[in-house]
Amino acid sequence: MQWVKGLGLGLGAAALLALGIILGHFAIPQNSPSISATQDLDLEILETVMGQLDASRIRENLRELSREPHLASSSRDEALVQLLLQRWTDPASGLDSAEAFEYEVLLSFPSQEQPNSVDVVGSAGDVLYSCRRSEENLTGEQGGPDVVPPYAAYAPPGTPQAVNAAKYGVAGVLVYTDPGDINDGLSLPNETFPNSWYLPPSGVERGSYYEYFGDPLTPYLPANPSSFRLDLTNVSGFPPIPTQPIGFQDAKVLLCNLNGSLAPAAWQGALGCDYRLGPGFHPEGDFPEDSQVNVSVHNHLQLRNSSNVLGIIRGAVEPDRYVLYGNHRDSWVHGAVDPSSGTAVLLELSRILGTLLKKGTWRPRRSIMFASWGAEEFGLIGSTEFTEEFFSKLQERTVAYLNVDISVFANATLRVQGTPPVQSVIFSAAKEIRSPGPGDLSIYDNWIRYFNRSSPVYGLVPSLGSLGAGSDYAPFIHFLGISSMDIAYTYDRSKTSARIYPTYHTAFDTFDYVDKFVDPGFSSHQAVARTAGSVILRLSDSLFLPLNVSDYSDTLRSFLQAAQQDLGALLEQHSISLEPLVTAVEKFEAAAAALGRYMSTLQKGSPDPLQVRMLNDQLMLLERTFLNPRAFPEERYYSHVLWAPRTGSTATFPGLANACSRAGDTSPGSEAWAEVQRQLSIVVVALEGAAATLRPVADL
Amino acid sequence: MQWVKGLGLGLGAAALLALGIILGHFAIPQNSPSISATQDLDLEILETVMGQLDASRIRENLRELSREPHLASSSRDEALVQLLLQRWTDPASGLDSAEAFEYEVLLSFPSQEQPNSVDVVGSAGDVLYSCRRSEENLTGEQGGPDVVPPYAAYAPPGTPQAVNAAKYGVAGVLVYTDPGDINDGLSLPNETFPNSWYLPPSGVERGSYYEYFGDPLTPYLPANPSSFRLDLTNVSGFPPIPTQPIGFQDAKVLLCNLNGSLAPAAWQGALGCDYRLGPGFHPEGDFPEDSQVNVSVHNHLQLRNSSNVLGIIRGAVEPDRYVLYGNHRDSWVHGAVDPSSGTAVLLELSRILGTLLKKGTWRPRRSIMFASWGAEEFGLIGSTEFTEEFFSKLQERTVAYLNVDISVFANATLRVQGTPPVQSVIFSAAKEIRSPGPGDLSIYDNWIRYFNRSSPVYGLVPSLGSLGAGSDYAPFIHFLGISSMDIAYTYDRSKTSARIYPTYHTAFDTFDYVDKFVDPGFSSHQAVARTAGSVILRLSDSLFLPLNVSDYSDTLRSFLQAAQQDLGALLEQHSISLEPLVTAVEKFEAAAAALGRYMSTLQKGSPDPLQVRMLNDQLMLLERTFLNPRAFPEERYYSHVLWAPRTGSTATFPGLANACSRAGDTSPGSEAWAEVQRQLSIVVVALEGAAATLRPVADL
Repeated sequence: MQWVKGLGLGLGAAALLALGIILGHFAIPQNSPSISATQDLDLEILETVMGQLDASRIRENLRELSREPHLASSSRDEALVQLLLQRWTDPASGLDSAEAFEYEVLLSFPSQEQPNSVDVVGSAGDVLYSCRRSEENLTGEQGGPDVVPPYAAYAPPGTPQAVNAAKYGVAGVLVYTDPGDINDGLSLPNETFPNSWYLPPSGVERGSYYEYFGDPLTPYLPANPSSFRLDLTNVSGFPPIPTQPIGFQDAKVLLCNLNGSLAPAAWQGALGCDYRLGPGFHPEGDFPEDSQVNVSVHNHLQLRNSSNVLGIIRGAVEPDRYVLYGNHRDSWVHGAVDPSSGTAVLLELSRILGTLLKKGTWRPRRSIMFASWGAEEFGLIGSTEFTEEFFSKLQERTVAYLNVDISVFANATLRVQGTPPVQSVIFSAAKEIRSPGPGDLSIYDNWIRYFNRSSPVYGLVPSLGSLGAGSDYAPFIHFLGISSMDIAYTYDRSKTSARIYPTYHTAFDTFDYVDKFVDPGFSSHQAVARTAGSVILRLSDSLFLPLNVSDYSDTLRSFLQAAQQDLGALLEQHSISLEPLVTAVEKFEAAAAALGRYMSTLQKGSPDPLQVRMLNDQLMLLERTFLNPRAFPEERYYSHVLWAPRTGSTATFPGLANACSRAGDTSPGSEAWAEVQRQLSIVVVALEGAAATLRPVADL
Repeated sequence: MQWVKGLGLGLGAAALLALGIILGHFAIPQNSPSISATQDLDLEILETVMGQLDASRIRENLRELSREPHLASSSRDEALVQLLLQRWTDPASGLDSAEAFEYEVLLSFPSQEQPNSVDVVGSAGDVLYSCRRSEENLTGEQGGPDVVPPYAAYAPPGTPQAVNAAKYGVAGVLVYTDPGDINDGLSLPNETFPNSWYLPPSGVERGSYYEYFGDPLTPYLPANPSSFRLDLTNVSGFPPIPTQPIGFQDAKVLLCNLNGSLAPAAWQGALGCDYRLGPGFHPEGDFPEDSQVNVSVHNHLQLRNSSNVLGIIRGAVEPDRYVLYGNHRDSWVHGAVDPSSGTAVLLELSRILGTLLKKGTWRPRRSIMFASWGAEEFGLIGSTEFTEEFFSKLQERTVAYLNVDISVFANATLRVQGTPPVQSVIFSAAKEIRSPGPGDLSIYDNWIRYFNRSSPVYGLVPSLGSLGAGSDYAPFIHFLGISSMDIAYTYDRSKTSARIYPTYHTAFDTFDYVDKFVDPGFSSHQAVARTAGSVILRLSDSLFLPLNVSDYSDTLRSFLQAAQQDLGALLEQHSISLEPLVTAVEKFEAAAAALGRYMSTLQKGSPDPLQVRMLNDQLMLLERTFLNPRAFPEERYYSHVLWAPRTGSTATFPGLANACSRAGDTSPGSEAWAEVQRQLSIVVVALEGAAATLRPVADL
């Protein structure tokens, strides 16, 4: 017995120890799993995240987020701030920390006491027709005090009488969305929501009419309570005249009764009549010839508190490198598509990553920062104030910014806008995820069927769009020079010519709309969540940053060729040579290619963590080298010499193209031609500086 | 025999092996000694460098550098470019690589055919007196074609007649250096050079009269041949009227004969007469009353090639971190003091470090970059073009810039100008080096006797001056936001009140002048070389960057107190509160202190190289967070919100102080008062951004 007991004891101890080890490894939460400084992306973790992203959870997120209207700074918007904070501080699925950052920003609202109105009045002042002041309550969600009536934010108040005033110039503007542009021509109630995804006749697109972005009173400064604010008389960028949006139902009444000559063919639409230019109403129409249209706009400006919510997962190895992923939170009304379809995805991804974090099974190499921006609809205000407040820190440390605003416009294909260095990481992600549609295609293989281009390097690849200023990525790319991207699922253009999903910015953009028409089953939402998740993990966990700077060579070469073709002859006439630009592009290409070779060598060996960090810094900071805050003094925030707004249609260097277009036929020694030369030098210096950043770091 | 032989063989093999090891270690050049990623500053290497810096070698360098005049872009200047390249590529004592970078810049020269002249002429046009057109050839070095005649660079050509023109305003300017300001009142030939260090009566101070710095035709762009150049009519910053410098010998003749009322007491000097204001000559003086002074200036502008020479020692561990050490190469004439005393030191330090490098006994942790700038005398042109060309790369990677222009003004004490983070490394170096004077004081203990202040943190310490735009550090600190310093040995102010060393910018600034009067024995040169060498090694080799960011707290607190005392009441009258600034300073102090504690903790443990790198990035990039390229749109290159030029005498936040001074008595709602509020917000945001950079890197 004794020896058996002894053996039993021995075996028991070993078994207990083993059990303890197993328990310790798998069951006890470890908030800091041991991660080596050369640990690369863990494909099992990636697989886990891909598998766990849950369409039904995204659907539930969306239902909650879009349950009530949540206009920027409204009480429901504030409630959603709390919801985000609660999710991101959840003990089981939250992040390391989360915080709301409040700004005091200038917003614009219609008056509750005096509704904006558009009326046709007779010569005696009698009201002959009134446009709707709110949308028709078709599903029970379009009524109530929280549905902001249609208005043009930042349009000034005023009461222009358009017909009379036309003699002296435009005194007011009415805006509507034509069924030809938004509804594939359909306009009848039985053809539109809630019977289809098309915009009902009473639907009105709200929007901001402010020309710039960011808080209008605090350009280049965060809108903290103590910050300097412009006097209203010094604010530029607001529309000069009263403006009001109306539905196509009302537009039809006004437009189909107009007198005057026929509008150009391109201006005709699907209202079912000939569009005429006025002035005045047609004598045989519904209104007496001497009727007028009275527009009353009673919008007012107001300083309001609006918050960003930031949440962070601390990086285990390089906590000072940030992978940023954000979307705005505020909507015009319920905002189920815009922006809640994006926030629903954001919350599901943060839940999955937060759960892995809290369980102790994973911590990223770099920090991941989640952001819920405020007051985007008024002009990217929350994100812009954030970049103004943390300008230096973000420029020093941010690897890339991923924006998912509207995550699903439609469920045909992935659509990506981004700067060239993000192409490779998007491709890597998209190749590994199944497309939600029929068949067994990857997202990548499906994508390439809808959007593609022929790359001199890779052959046929999906084509990325470039980043304008349509969502919160704008301050990141244009003001901070951070490699950015915006992803969504979108249309099959062979099936619709709608400018955007039809209920955009109306009271009909609701949960049921998404659930029934946009993405039943939420598989496109899930596909976007997987793509975003894969991109975020690749950026946060890869040992070598998956930013392929060589892909800028492709863009630069095509910009150069476009400049040579479109501007070369004109420039030559003015003795301006593109040779320095050719040389600069060549230097960039050579430096990028050499860096790629160096990276391959490092990857084959056993690189030490500092070597990797130095190389990654080159990759991360490349985009920054294209910034020049003095390049476009008249363009607020736009400092990126490759992606500033272009006036022409040719995809080329914007400063050069714009300056050429302005110089035009002015005389050879003009200031305008000097500006062309200055812009050419600016882009040459930027490219040479970019090449210098990519060359071996101890080169002179 | 056999066993003996065997033993002998065994012993012999061991001895050979040991010998081999010893040879391998000490004799075979290893260009890359094995350096661990956590290697700290090697005090033995520091000791070696301190011991090897050789005063007589510095003297020989100076003799060679100042042998001939080397005006910017002259053939001797070009020859010195070759000399530097040769030294820095020497197989036994050179650097890893060296290269000349040529720019095409706009310089200004007097005409060889038509010398500038200043004459007194009678009413009939007869010349009554002519000022000297060149300095007296006292030592055989002041003659010859390479000695540029005295002139005011960038002053426009013209022939004003000063007396007549005075009725309508100033038409021309004559500049001279009064013996009261430069010579402690002495002016006789036997009291001046070559009999003493004082300026001889014929000596004339040359200089640039361009208001900004950098190449005048290419602001913000490197002056490469293809770069856009301003049309001359669009260049601002040149003096509007003809200007010519003269010696005090000639000034005496003009000034002591002037008529009119007595000049203010502060304008009187040591020429031995009462200074009067004119107009016209005194009836009892040397010239008829109706005589006039004719000034003829024939300066011309010319595009010339000017080179920087750059040399680099590649860092072993962090080659992408640069410690920059530079001085200009060009002089007005022989330039023994200015700038060759600095270059002589630079060459000796690069020789010592190069020798250690080539022997394989040392390689720095970070890269060290040596620079010899061109065309500094015309307005810091070479260094400015360099910062324009490599803006991004330098901002990303430069740890600090050390400037040693004139290394020895006089041999009493060290003098340092710099930003607060460099104070600690200078102090560390200065405490360990013996002062060259009598007694056994350290440079630090000697220094504190001449310049000191009471620090709330440290008690009595040597005081650092702040950086203006007097030498090539200007573009580094003001345009790039790189922590910078300028060091030299200088005067005992109880012994001289000379504005600067007396032969400054004259043909009398020669090797013999230095050898006999400024620093016989070159021990002050050696002291500066040791200080510079110690600072460079500490910056390049310390594991933790020796930049004490907490020392900015001291400066900010004193700026804040000055603002409260000097501007507080005025601001309060305009309802402008300094509270946000107080809060921002407090946040900075707290973040800097916490970072200091974190660093101490790391230092006590065994930090991994990435942790050190992340902390060092915070230290390196702090200075960058004070840059705001939009803060002072009218000040070219000045973007550092703490060190931009101040118009007032109070050491405080320059933007705020200048704006207050401009707003002055304007009405409360004026644009000028709005600018005060804007400037206040700019500095608050900069300080908050700085604090954000210092806080733990994964904090929100």
